[in-house]
Amino acid sequence: MIKIVLDCFGGDHSPEANVDGAIAALGLFDDLHLILSGDETALRGCLEGKSYDSSRIEFLHAPQVIGCNERPTDVIRLKRDSSMVKAIRLLRDDDSVAAMVSTGSTGALVAGALTRIGRLRGIIRPAFCPILPTMDGGLVGVCDSGANVEVTPEHLRQFAIMASLYMENVYGVSKPRVALLNVGKESEKGDELRQIAYKLLTETEEINFVGNMESRDLLSGKYDVVVADGFSGNVLVKTTEGTALELLGKLKGEIYSKFIYKVGGALMAPMFRRLKDFMNYQNYGGSVLLGTSKVVVKGHGSSKATAVCKCIEQAYKMQLSDLGGKIEDVICRYDHYEL
Amino acid sequence: MIKIVLDCFGGDHSPEANVDGAIAALGLFDDLHLILSGDETALRGCLEGKSYDSSRIEFLHAPQVIGCNERPTDVIRLKRDSSMVKAIRLLRDDDSVAAMVSTGSTGALVAGALTRIGRLRGIIRPAFCPILPTMDGGLVGVCDSGANVEVTPEHLRQFAIMASLYMENVYGVSKPRVALLNVGKESEKGDELRQIAYKLLTETEEINFVGNMESRDLLSGKYDVVVADGFSGNVLVKTTEGTALELLGKLKGEIYSKFIYKVGGALMAPMFRRLKDFMNYQNYGGSVLLGTSKVVVKGHGSSKATAVCKCIEQAYKMQLSDLGGKIEDVICRYDHYEL
Repeated sequence: MIKIVLDCFGGDHSPEANVDGAIAALGLFDDLHLILSGDETALRGCLEGKSYDSSRIEFLHAPQVIGCNERPTDVIRLKRDSSMVKAIRLLRDDDSVAAMVSTGSTGALVAGALTRIGRLRGIIRPAFCPILPTMDGGLVGVCDSGANVEVTPEHLRQFAIMASLYMENVYGVSKPRVALLNVGKESEKGDELRQIAYKLLTETEEINFVGNMESRDLLSGKYDVVVADGFSGNVLVKTTEGTALELLGKLKGEIYSKFIYKVGGALMAPMFRRLKDFMNYQNYGGSVLLGTSKVVVKGHGSSKATAVCKCIEQAYKMQLSDLGGKIEDVICRYDHYEL
Repeated sequence: MIKIVLDCFGGDHSPEANVDGAIAALGLFDDLHLILSGDETALRGCLEGKSYDSSRIEFLHAPQVIGCNERPTDVIRLKRDSSMVKAIRLLRDDDSVAAMVSTGSTGALVAGALTRIGRLRGIIRPAFCPILPTMDGGLVGVCDSGANVEVTPEHLRQFAIMASLYMENVYGVSKPRVALLNVGKESEKGDELRQIAYKLLTETEEINFVGNMESRDLLSGKYDVVVADGFSGNVLVKTTEGTALELLGKLKGEIYSKFIYKVGGALMAPMFRRLKDFMNYQNYGGSVLLGTSKVVVKGHGSSKATAVCKCIEQAYKMQLSDLGGKIEDVICRYDHYEL
């Protein structure tokens, strides 16, 4: 049995999307057990009339609500009866609970995970690793994408090891091709951080380092893992999402602007739907936090049921494959470069 | 008369595209005078049979060719008879020459501009400012996008002032809305660099600072200038270009995959062409280098004639509006924060 606690509040479509995602996930894995965190009456209301295996659902009553503009550290300290903080506490205290999924505040989740859950042995800094689709039908993980705006070369090496093992164990990618985000492909490009990281990554035998990547190649399918500091990784991921959304929006606007285009658009409707689905990050789950001592998955704030279900699937597979143990095994072979 | 030297070699479509771009530009401005740098025989060959005002074209014979993988500093030191280095030298030595346009190696151009041309009074670091189209039909400039991978808050303030004056004087944008690229909108987001820069930008009365921008909003039309360190600015611009190209490529592939989609695609052909044109950076000219004591414009390596012509137009307008003088006027009001 794999037991996961699901924070059911804090997302744009909470708690309905979270509850529906939970039901869908229970249908995928027979040995999955879910604990729904949040106002129990509201949660029971969402479940009403729906078909699911009630023996595999529990509740963690958490009546307190987190506001939009609350400071992450205040949330963790002061909102002790909120769905997120109670879920974090349960994850910390209950050995039978393996993972947590949340669509709530990213900052609060990171603060909570770092201060309450702790890190895997040898890990200096946990990092986010969201997944994007590539044009050849594959996937690429970007690590870090925002948990650490300032990093050292050794952090980058650890991100590479963690994300590589993640792609291998959760997505079945064999020998993931790992690239370093840089302003050019040549080894001497970028600042000192990138130049030292390039050398460190080359020396790291456990990963398949293929060199620098220019950001325009993210979706090309040539890379399985891209390593970045949290600032530029964040820019990389959000620019990709933003550009895709803006372009598809513009395309839609244009189609509606003229009758003849509407006819053409109708003929191509299945294709446009596929393209939209393809670029819809809801279909690729959440941004997993790699390096915490228990599995933590952050779903997009706008997650609908499909996305929540995907996040639970990610958490389940991370736990099933003992990703944390495998990360510790590799990390412990390295002395910290700068320690 | 405004005299501009055009490096006619070094681009993917050189020298034909550069020469054709030059002819087009001469058609736009009656007082434009161009000096074509490169192998004179080859250049005369490209001009043959074409109609243009020959009294406004001169040649700067430069027989040497720069290889693909040469180090920027070696180019500047050793390739003294190349089209780029001769153009840079002419720009430095001839007071009547106001500007230079090149589609050659970015690294060599930056190295040459910094060591041979020098900076405007008060400017610590020149920076690139490419222009991208926004979804509402406007434009947005990103400064810096790669000339400086490591920056200080004061650099960022100078980028903001330069790019703001550039958008105002060359594109007629009144009170350009300036944003700081960051990982979130709140003022306390990001690393120390961003937090100090945020404060500095708020205190800078000459610009219309509107706060932090998340990268997903680059094309939204809410901003006219985005200020960034050269590393993340480079990621921002190249990711946008890359995602747009990949998506349009995928769209095209899908259209050709099925007969019915081809029919739909044919009906929508003018729209797709417009969309492609819209996202084609060739139509927006080059990346101007702001802060050098004379105007330097870097065209994309893949520039065709239209793009080269746009680059010349940018250089012409920068000179015509005395952008350099205006930048010096504002910059000199500020003591350097960290000096």
